[in-house]
Amino acid sequence: MDRNKALEIVKKHLTEHRYVHTLGVLETSLKLAELYGGDLDKTETAAIFHDYAKFRPKDEMREIVKNENLPQDLLLFGSEVLHAPVGAFLVEKEIGIQDEEVLSAIYYHTTGNGNMNTLEKVIFLADYIEPNRHFPGVEEVREEAEKDLNKACLMAVKNTINFLMKQNQKIYPLTLETYNGLMDETQNKK
Amino acid sequence: MDRNKALEIVKKHLTEHRYVHTLGVLETSLKLAELYGGDLDKTETAAIFHDYAKFRPKDEMREIVKNENLPQDLLLFGSEVLHAPVGAFLVEKEIGIQDEEVLSAIYYHTTGNGNMNTLEKVIFLADYIEPNRHFPGVEEVREEAEKDLNKACLMAVKNTINFLMKQNQKIYPLTLETYNGLMDETQNKK
Repeated sequence: MDRNKALEIVKKHLTEHRYVHTLGVLETSLKLAELYGGDLDKTETAAIFHDYAKFRPKDEMREIVKNENLPQDLLLFGSEVLHAPVGAFLVEKEIGIQDEEVLSAIYYHTTGNGNMNTLEKVIFLADYIEPNRHFPGVEEVREEAEKDLNKACLMAVKNTINFLMKQNQKIYPLTLETYNGLMDETQNKK
Repeated sequence: MDRNKALEIVKKHLTEHRYVHTLGVLETSLKLAELYGGDLDKTETAAIFHDYAKFRPKDEMREIVKNENLPQDLLLFGSEVLHAPVGAFLVEKEIGIQDEEVLSAIYYHTTGNGNMNTLEKVIFLADYIEPNRHFPGVEEVREEAEKDLNKACLMAVKNTINFLMKQNQKIYPLTLETYNGLMDETQNKK
């Protein structure tokens, strides 16, 4: 899909702040894809649409989880984990994107998974470090992102687990699978 | 089983250091069981035998996991997570303990699980805070243990997750289930 056309579509579904974030994810993910040999077209599409469902009402997202064969344990966690798999479902249904790798990168952009491919890692990491993100520890992850994709993703998921524990929020099991998978990869046990 | 007879049996399977730890778990778990209304006989048996398999050779523990229908994903993690489920299997087979609650408290004493009963919590927590344990943060958990069993267990599992991440060790999924389950319980969402 043409980049400007895609951005025009997604802009209608986002706040101004989240649209600026999306542009940041687009810029950062393309840099990472160039650096680590990712497919630039797929990266662009996944980046632009990754937060497509971010502002759907929570009840609508929960109904989609219930009715569309998504993992039912999503309903036991906060809305932060809902928007990614629901987004993958909606961009296929409403936009007609059918590329499985693009859909998977959108699906797993918040939690990751235990066996991520390069596109999934690029979108996951870009969402965490794009230039509009400001929180303790992000700069160290940005620096690592230029050197080692796996180690940078591992730093991001560790920070996320720490953040959620400090906030007394539950942690979706896929987030732990991401940690364990990246631990295997970075220790060359895979 | 008579306490002295049980201690005599278990002593043969432990180092002196680990036997002293076991006496500490016994003392602490009985205090917790009195405080939170646990069964004292079951607490005593579970405490005495909780580390029964601690010094079995790793290969023997792995064979038991493979052959005795224990969760196969245990094989992907460190020996620290093996000794608890293998211990539950061996105390049933070799000592003849058949009480399901006692066996379950031994099985889950390292990881916990997502829906722990009082005996499981008492053994899990006593293993963490018994008087011979010395590490940063243990004193705060000891203090909380006198006030709120669930909150103290939650502090213990949070510390464990942080410790494992700092050590770059993988985290067994049941440990996360324990965290999420206790988060629900302490926030009264259960």
